[in-house]
Amino acid sequence: MSLTRNTKNVPYYILGAGAFARLGDFIDERRHGGGAALFCVDHYFQDKEALRDLPAKDGDIVVFVDTSKEPAVEYVDALSDGVKARLQGRPPCCVVGMGGGATLDVAKAVANLLSNPGKAEEYQGWELVKNPAPYKIGVPTLSGTGAECSRTCVLTNEKRKLKLGMNSDYTVYDQLVLDPSLTVSVPRDQFFFTGMDTYMHCFESLRGAYRNVIVDRLSLCAMDMCRDIFLGQEDMMSEANRENMMVASYLGGMAAGNTGLVHPLSAGLSIVLHLPHGRANCYALSVLGDFYPEEHAAFTQMLAKNRISLPKGICANLSEEQYDALHQGTIVHEKPLSNALGPDFKNILGKERLTSMFKAM
Amino acid sequence: MSLTRNTKNVPYYILGAGAFARLGDFIDERRHGGGAALFCVDHYFQDKEALRDLPAKDGDIVVFVDTSKEPAVEYVDALSDGVKARLQGRPPCCVVGMGGGATLDVAKAVANLLSNPGKAEEYQGWELVKNPAPYKIGVPTLSGTGAECSRTCVLTNEKRKLKLGMNSDYTVYDQLVLDPSLTVSVPRDQFFFTGMDTYMHCFESLRGAYRNVIVDRLSLCAMDMCRDIFLGQEDMMSEANRENMMVASYLGGMAAGNTGLVHPLSAGLSIVLHLPHGRANCYALSVLGDFYPEEHAAFTQMLAKNRISLPKGICANLSEEQYDALHQGTIVHEKPLSNALGPDFKNILGKERLTSMFKAM
Repeated sequence: MSLTRNTKNVPYYILGAGAFARLGDFIDERRHGGGAALFCVDHYFQDKEALRDLPAKDGDIVVFVDTSKEPAVEYVDALSDGVKARLQGRPPCCVVGMGGGATLDVAKAVANLLSNPGKAEEYQGWELVKNPAPYKIGVPTLSGTGAECSRTCVLTNEKRKLKLGMNSDYTVYDQLVLDPSLTVSVPRDQFFFTGMDTYMHCFESLRGAYRNVIVDRLSLCAMDMCRDIFLGQEDMMSEANRENMMVASYLGGMAAGNTGLVHPLSAGLSIVLHLPHGRANCYALSVLGDFYPEEHAAFTQMLAKNRISLPKGICANLSEEQYDALHQGTIVHEKPLSNALGPDFKNILGKERLTSMFKAM
Repeated sequence: MSLTRNTKNVPYYILGAGAFARLGDFIDERRHGGGAALFCVDHYFQDKEALRDLPAKDGDIVVFVDTSKEPAVEYVDALSDGVKARLQGRPPCCVVGMGGGATLDVAKAVANLLSNPGKAEEYQGWELVKNPAPYKIGVPTLSGTGAECSRTCVLTNEKRKLKLGMNSDYTVYDQLVLDPSLTVSVPRDQFFFTGMDTYMHCFESLRGAYRNVIVDRLSLCAMDMCRDIFLGQEDMMSEANRENMMVASYLGGMAAGNTGLVHPLSAGLSIVLHLPHGRANCYALSVLGDFYPEEHAAFTQMLAKNRISLPKGICANLSEEQYDALHQGTIVHEKPLSNALGPDFKNILGKERLTSMFKAM
């Protein structure tokens, strides 16, 4: 096994039902400088009860993150410009991201832009963020993306036709509040599709060429948990399983190694059809049985056991232009594709083969 | 499952053969303040080749840690007094601990004493360290104790007849350098006994009453790795298995939940017979088959498979005073004992029963 990069862990976590009630303490510990706390909250909570327990004080800023679409660079720019105007040059005491992967990622991106000049797209890439972001607290309300642990925040960029994050140690949250009671009202489909994201990035990593022992073992651990949750006796959304899924996402996020074939095809679907990430992953895996036979079989069982349907035909009648865009949006992901297939990936996944795979979805 | 305490992870790790060559870079990143780097190195390396690669510069301080005995508070006091005199009031740019669990713990304790006044024993307990320690880099050269991840540094205190650490987030290392090539020359017995420490604190945690999902899953993961290493096809000290054991120790150390019956009996043995920790654990488990039948059976297999012997009779002919001290040195560990046996642990583990267990070792 080769030498890893110097890897950052999320420095602090608290786990368990009731953890959310501690959020106010964590924020108060940062208030000494006098700046406002900035809350980036999934718009889903706008009229929900949980919002009443948000420990926002006078002068704090609460913004709602529209997660009906995948987060885009322009959206993040607008959001951070608005926040900057309200902060009037005074740095926030901390930034709280509360929501699913999209919201957690938007909060990370906005935080980076509060301490670094310019536009979001200038930081899409690796090690481009120059100044540390304000202190960040992540409160996931949906489990599976691993965004609570990762050093990236995935943003779509229509102009450059890609999805790419601000890969930086500065992007990592400083504190996680893992409270499974926050996931009780997640729709069942969404719980399943998002949970599968953990399962998928873990097996993509394990089946790839670029590996290390820590990532491998954490991936195996998170996959075991997913199998227990989605194929076990208990309902996938039982109290215990919602806590298990929150931990699987956390451990899978710590593992976050290199993805393989699922994520590139999924990115293509999100770019062209604006499919949400979790659902797009599931469509991608549904046609990857040749490459991942075991995982495809287990996934098919998981769909059936939890009565989740994936209606066929989403790419059946697209224009030639759209098939081109699907191909381009997939093949651009050279690192995960070569991780899965080696340097010859462009020949293995030619336009024709890819198009017939998309048509089979 | 109940709410966890707010839990600190080691913020950075690098893993793989060759990681040790990066140590100089990590230290150099801290040198801006001009203070010396302090190296606390296991005395085993005093005349070894690895020492030539130690990235110490002019003005840095290298101290060798005598690990022939379990680290004691007086020893740590003397060491930190010596270091303070040489530092002449200037804080070190960082503290490097390089060695097994004892050395890693001594480096943590010395670091705490460099930024906090008084003697080591004043900090034996929970949350007593008031000021952050200097930046610390841990370089394990022996795998299994989990000292590289833990928030404690176990020190014996003859006066108070106990083993107790400085439990504090300030005790945690800031950076780990996990290089399995550093464990190539570990004696086989020591590799086994120390590796078993991971196996034991993980199953003690899993069999206990105080639990959480993250600790449980990391414990299961580390135990799986131990079974692969000590019962698998490959030699336990193959190149791959030395890396696996380094990771098992790291993940088991992150799990470091609450211990059970092994550690209290082991502490008694270390106090009375000055047995090293790993070996003492193994003697303890050897008589705990009634309490941990499965784990005892697997352990017996591991001993046999790796041709490790545990000669009988170490407590056969002790004085009444010594049996008293063994009983006291065990029963004082109320938290792990009640974790394993509930509040009635003193009746379950009476003097007579404990003594007959020690005599059976």
